[in-house]
Amino acid sequence: MRVSRRGEVDPFIVMDVVRQAQEMEARGRRIIHLEIGQPGTPAPRGARAALAERMQADPLGYAVSLGLTPLRQGIARLYGDWYNVDLDPARVIVTPGSSGAFLLAFTALFDPGARVGIGVPGYPSYRQILKALSLDPVLIETEAAARFQPLPGDVAAHRLDGLLVASPGNPTGTMLDRGAMTALIEACAATDTAFISDEIYHGLEYQAKAVSALEISDDCYVINSFSKYFSMTGWRVGWLVVPQDHVRRIERIAQHLFICAPHASQVVALAALDCRDELDGNLATYATNRELMIAGLAEAGFDRFAPPDGGFYIYADVSHLTDDSLAFAGQILEQAGVAVTPGLDFDPGRGAGTLRFSYCGTSDDIREGLRRLRDFMVGYLATR
Amino acid sequence: MRVSRRGEVDPFIVMDVVRQAQEMEARGRRIIHLEIGQPGTPAPRGARAALAERMQADPLGYAVSLGLTPLRQGIARLYGDWYNVDLDPARVIVTPGSSGAFLLAFTALFDPGARVGIGVPGYPSYRQILKALSLDPVLIETEAAARFQPLPGDVAAHRLDGLLVASPGNPTGTMLDRGAMTALIEACAATDTAFISDEIYHGLEYQAKAVSALEISDDCYVINSFSKYFSMTGWRVGWLVVPQDHVRRIERIAQHLFICAPHASQVVALAALDCRDELDGNLATYATNRELMIAGLAEAGFDRFAPPDGGFYIYADVSHLTDDSLAFAGQILEQAGVAVTPGLDFDPGRGAGTLRFSYCGTSDDIREGLRRLRDFMVGYLATR
Repeated sequence: MRVSRRGEVDPFIVMDVVRQAQEMEARGRRIIHLEIGQPGTPAPRGARAALAERMQADPLGYAVSLGLTPLRQGIARLYGDWYNVDLDPARVIVTPGSSGAFLLAFTALFDPGARVGIGVPGYPSYRQILKALSLDPVLIETEAAARFQPLPGDVAAHRLDGLLVASPGNPTGTMLDRGAMTALIEACAATDTAFISDEIYHGLEYQAKAVSALEISDDCYVINSFSKYFSMTGWRVGWLVVPQDHVRRIERIAQHLFICAPHASQVVALAALDCRDELDGNLATYATNRELMIAGLAEAGFDRFAPPDGGFYIYADVSHLTDDSLAFAGQILEQAGVAVTPGLDFDPGRGAGTLRFSYCGTSDDIREGLRRLRDFMVGYLATR
Repeated sequence: MRVSRRGEVDPFIVMDVVRQAQEMEARGRRIIHLEIGQPGTPAPRGARAALAERMQADPLGYAVSLGLTPLRQGIARLYGDWYNVDLDPARVIVTPGSSGAFLLAFTALFDPGARVGIGVPGYPSYRQILKALSLDPVLIETEAAARFQPLPGDVAAHRLDGLLVASPGNPTGTMLDRGAMTALIEACAATDTAFISDEIYHGLEYQAKAVSALEISDDCYVINSFSKYFSMTGWRVGWLVVPQDHVRRIERIAQHLFICAPHASQVVALAALDCRDELDGNLATYATNRELMIAGLAEAGFDRFAPPDGGFYIYADVSHLTDDSLAFAGQILEQAGVAVTPGLDFDPGRGAGTLRFSYCGTSDDIREGLRRLRDFMVGYLATR
């Protein structure tokens, strides 16, 4: 049967590690998971209770495509709380996860062949979603000195039709400050380049508050999700904020592409907005884990990384230890029983010399993982 | 800010009717809804109970992209129950509604400009999703004599790269019998045309059982959903069955485009597979409603339609009554307080002379709606 070229997207390389870890667990080995990108915590208790109650009385049929009105209002209020931005709820579109928001944004903005810039290292699905939509992902190699973020000069140099930034980024956790974000937005405005800001790790910051593109301009697309801070990965509910005159356009596309984000998940999300105590408890755990990781990784010999500003990952340069991060991750898993992510998913070139460590698990698991990594490295360094 | 051409999709024309109905309801008028395409019933009681319990213990994080294994197995067993087809669960991919299945199928099969045939009248989102993916929807005008379905000769005549059929169809409720389905599949095989079968209304049949394309060939894509028979529209969970050698391809695309179908919805869907008594009770209501509608519409003067084989719609030719179905629907709503769907969404050409009546509400509402339509038509026919 026929197939398309656009459908030839790359698999996640980390899945090889995940599969190997599952096989080892099936044989009875205890594995510490530092490869996963999702909180181990469920949706907040109060949010689940809200759904349990609502399910009794409401058939939870199709929601309107833009999302439940109280949820859109609640998200708009979050911009007041978090950034002191007065956001019109009419500009908020509830989506099936941030994944759905990317599909909507790219479809609304770009025709086949459009050049969309993304920083590498970066979230691997950006380039695969772009490819699946017959768009041209332009990989911009970023540097530690620029907090692993694109620079204003990249916009014109790469003749971009769009620029997608993530702050805090995955895998690096580094952020754009207000000046850097402003400069990128201005460079895009000067060249009719669409500016898209992925803010999925907002709410998970450890020093400065993350800057939203909406603090700087209304002429941009902002994408966020209930997956990370709100601890709701599997519920698949996110959102997109667009300029006022793009709302009807997005609504039409969403009606046909998705009909609506899952209604039950929207009920959970709405209630989660009021569960800040539990969520801030999760955040306190990540903050503890981050301190453990910064100290423990360095002690183990993984000492080449920028302390993350936000999110729950550390991206370490291990090029002095290996030139094959996939094999190295396999060796760590086999010998230490610790699953980590090789950098190749995030940076097809330089990722052969990097690893990503996630710290969204329990603090006990982080401690045990770091102990194992330390022991592994003693042996590794002794035998090479 | 820049916009794309592909994003210029059409709105649902029925939304004008829906908005007008909402305004009338806000002013206190009681409206009978014969325009909606979703069951008024919730997910089965046992399925909601299963989620309420699971939420207590399981964080419901990301599921694997292909779907929960027990759910894939349960769906495969359904093909044994319903069609006596022995389906390998490995070929079943759980999707975010049938909407997600269409996105996956079209992305896996077609590059920009590919010609994909769809019968009109038909589900309006087909052509808009195709457009959003920069594909070329080829509208095949179908006739009542052919049960409003494409004919084998259409495949070569339209130089199709793909053919999408729906049986039972929306809005007509008419089906392809085994011979007609076989002839279409063979015509596609002869021209390397991908054959996609939308079977979302299966399980809602009133005389003969609907034929699945999988009874005839493994070399096709089959799309279905928990929205209709399983009464789970807002949960957004459907499925896609593909040839064995397409599974890995679809998995990679799904990983990036969606990550996974909503985990909680998959839990509900799995339990719904065992709630057949409640679901067959819903079906009995639709069967009653169908009889009421066939008799009542004819009595009211809407007598030009083919009795539906399945689904929960009747598509009536009203070209002897109006040449502007949108205005006519508006008049029916205003005067009779009954919301119906003008045919223009389903057939941009001939739909100016057709209406769709949905019968998925309660039987009491159907009776009241028919009474109002009868009264309306007495006045309408007297004054024209």
